[in-house]
Amino acid sequence: MSTVEPFDTVDLITTKRDKGRLSTAQISWLVDAYTRGYVADEQMSAMAMAILLNGMDRAEVHDLTMAMIATGERMSFEGLSRKTADKHSTGGVGDKITLPLAPLVASFGVAVPQLSGRGLGHTGGTLDKLESIPGWRAALSNEEMRSQLDSIGAVICAAGSGLAPADKKLYALRDITGTVESIPLIASSIMSKKIAEGTSVLVLDVKFGSGAFMKTQERARELAETMVALGADAGVATSALLTNMNVPLGLAIGNANEVRESVEVLAGGGPADVVELTLALAREMLAASGQPDADVEKALSGGRAMDTWRAMIKAQDGDPDAPLPVAKETRDVVADRDGVLEKQDALAFGIAAWRLGAGRARKEDPVQHAAGIDLRAKPGDSVKKGQVLFTLSADEPARFDRALEALEGAYSIAEAGAKVAVAPLIADRVTV
Amino acid sequence: MSTVEPFDTVDLITTKRDKGRLSTAQISWLVDAYTRGYVADEQMSAMAMAILLNGMDRAEVHDLTMAMIATGERMSFEGLSRKTADKHSTGGVGDKITLPLAPLVASFGVAVPQLSGRGLGHTGGTLDKLESIPGWRAALSNEEMRSQLDSIGAVICAAGSGLAPADKKLYALRDITGTVESIPLIASSIMSKKIAEGTSVLVLDVKFGSGAFMKTQERARELAETMVALGADAGVATSALLTNMNVPLGLAIGNANEVRESVEVLAGGGPADVVELTLALAREMLAASGQPDADVEKALSGGRAMDTWRAMIKAQDGDPDAPLPVAKETRDVVADRDGVLEKQDALAFGIAAWRLGAGRARKEDPVQHAAGIDLRAKPGDSVKKGQVLFTLSADEPARFDRALEALEGAYSIAEAGAKVAVAPLIADRVTV
Repeated sequence: MSTVEPFDTVDLITTKRDKGRLSTAQISWLVDAYTRGYVADEQMSAMAMAILLNGMDRAEVHDLTMAMIATGERMSFEGLSRKTADKHSTGGVGDKITLPLAPLVASFGVAVPQLSGRGLGHTGGTLDKLESIPGWRAALSNEEMRSQLDSIGAVICAAGSGLAPADKKLYALRDITGTVESIPLIASSIMSKKIAEGTSVLVLDVKFGSGAFMKTQERARELAETMVALGADAGVATSALLTNMNVPLGLAIGNANEVRESVEVLAGGGPADVVELTLALAREMLAASGQPDADVEKALSGGRAMDTWRAMIKAQDGDPDAPLPVAKETRDVVADRDGVLEKQDALAFGIAAWRLGAGRARKEDPVQHAAGIDLRAKPGDSVKKGQVLFTLSADEPARFDRALEALEGAYSIAEAGAKVAVAPLIADRVTV
Repeated sequence: MSTVEPFDTVDLITTKRDKGRLSTAQISWLVDAYTRGYVADEQMSAMAMAILLNGMDRAEVHDLTMAMIATGERMSFEGLSRKTADKHSTGGVGDKITLPLAPLVASFGVAVPQLSGRGLGHTGGTLDKLESIPGWRAALSNEEMRSQLDSIGAVICAAGSGLAPADKKLYALRDITGTVESIPLIASSIMSKKIAEGTSVLVLDVKFGSGAFMKTQERARELAETMVALGADAGVATSALLTNMNVPLGLAIGNANEVRESVEVLAGGGPADVVELTLALAREMLAASGQPDADVEKALSGGRAMDTWRAMIKAQDGDPDAPLPVAKETRDVVADRDGVLEKQDALAFGIAAWRLGAGRARKEDPVQHAAGIDLRAKPGDSVKKGQVLFTLSADEPARFDRALEALEGAYSIAEAGAKVAVAPLIADRVTV
């Protein structure tokens, strides 16, 4: 068997271990051989650790991305009556932007295919959120997806297993081997699926801060630049916003409560930060699709985006008018003094919501749709002693204590009248 | 299951990945959990790559060594009528020193237990060499070994699987994941077996140069210092010689021919470098065993060491008088001009001998006992055009071409009268 293989696995690992670079042919072989099982998991995990610690140059990341695409099918949206624009977020706490954004952009005649995932760990999954809507189903056939994109424009559904199967296998391995936090590996994982999906416009929301994979703006910029270059190389018009994830996005963290907040935004209300980011991403997607002057604010306030939302939910058998699930138990946490809320740590609130049942520890676990946290104040807000700062919701009261443990030291109140600096939500924009 | 484990595997991997240090409890758990299969191979290989690239401090290497010992049995030589002294070489080309050394030291009343291995890749294995002696067997029970140590003093046999099983499992993993060349991993692998074996004196031959794991004297010193400290911590009187492995040791590279050369040394002859290193290591072992003035030269020239050799071979069913196997085919390589031999690259000669059949590519493969290389000149020797420089031996003539390929550029002849500097064989000595 080994005599017909063009490369030796250990040679490739030691090349990267010793800070060398891998050729196009070597990377192409490695990814293919890993997918078909010739390169073993223990070899690929050593390689992943070597890549994480020694890096890859732009050409290597490009080759890795293209090699992962080549292991699966490529979709095509040619023949659709609409242009396609996709958005991807690197994940954060309270990030429900896909829900109002997809129908908003689709209401301008653009097709928005959102192949989404489920949550793992402290960041929520878009599919988990939408599944709190009675009847809604995530699994669509390619034909159903295409037909919905053509008629309604917006579709949020589960990614099929046909796109970049190497990525699926590698991601599962990275998850258990401490090799997730690598820019070349993250960038190629995200972009292989987006390029294989066949979109013509892609807008990235690359988050930084305590609740994000990238802890600093500098690392987020590096990841964004890597992905924007990969998109451009593959003929996808790609841009990125760098956004702050030190504080949860919006007021709702969970599943049903995030849907509720998204519907508020579609109705012309909702928290200012969720509205700001929804509008900014919609403008990016529409400008790249040839509509730089689209009046996205009016589409929200005038109900056009809401009409598209309702059509999108109904097309996937959901009832947009059905009541959303409500938790059996709630617990309020109040301010212990007068002052100004100055800290609200995204990671801690994400972990707390996860422990309440909003997220899962293993991919087989179910989520509890009504579990989560509703914030009643944001950093910079004045608060009075005894005022509710946030409300925890869970189906099992036993979960409150572990959630509150995660929140110890995660929020604080400065003395009344103190100036609390609030960082801008959108820090920068990255293009080719 | 995971609820009763005290640590999370991914936490430990990311700690080392991020240049942190692992505690005694963490290392102890990791090695035990890996041995019982809770920590998966793909997780351990990511950890091994992180250790290789980010290192371990002395305390971590000590903890790793002790944790590997704890996974298996510990032997004890208490109750023997002799003191025990062991020698370990980090491996090189033409390194047959164990064969004359064990009987030489044993002839002074010291017990020399040499638990040895088989060759893999370009370095030969002591057991493979001795198995070219008709009838000789490598596998001894603990009782047979103990009895032979008591009566004869010298025993060279296969290491049982009971000593440090974690090391066996980890070594097999490192071999296929590009994580062999790590000082913490090499040191803990060697020393876990030596400490578990229960010797009271240990002399290390740490080689550097093209034919050794450690390419530079600096790296060899670092490895030697690490191992000497590990031995001292465990109560084993440990010292090391740093020896040059840029050139093959002696004139014979293979199996039967290395036995032949060893017998020449035991008969008072043999190549100067093999004699020099045998005597130096014997003096180290005997001095540490309380015999600093032992006349080791006389023991060789007077036949006392040869008597012990013959008794040792016979005790393991070998016939010391039987003819050794001879190869079916030989091929001479001659000098293409008059001059001085100036280069003889150990690695290339090791690979050539391996390709002739002296070594194995996979651990299941047999070795060909008569295959190998006999050098007819060493660097610094004057040679005449047409004079034989070395002779290749193999059972299959088809092997000569690939062996000669490995030797391209591996030797060279300087103009007649040129001064060729020959580096000293023993570069330094390392003690606590």
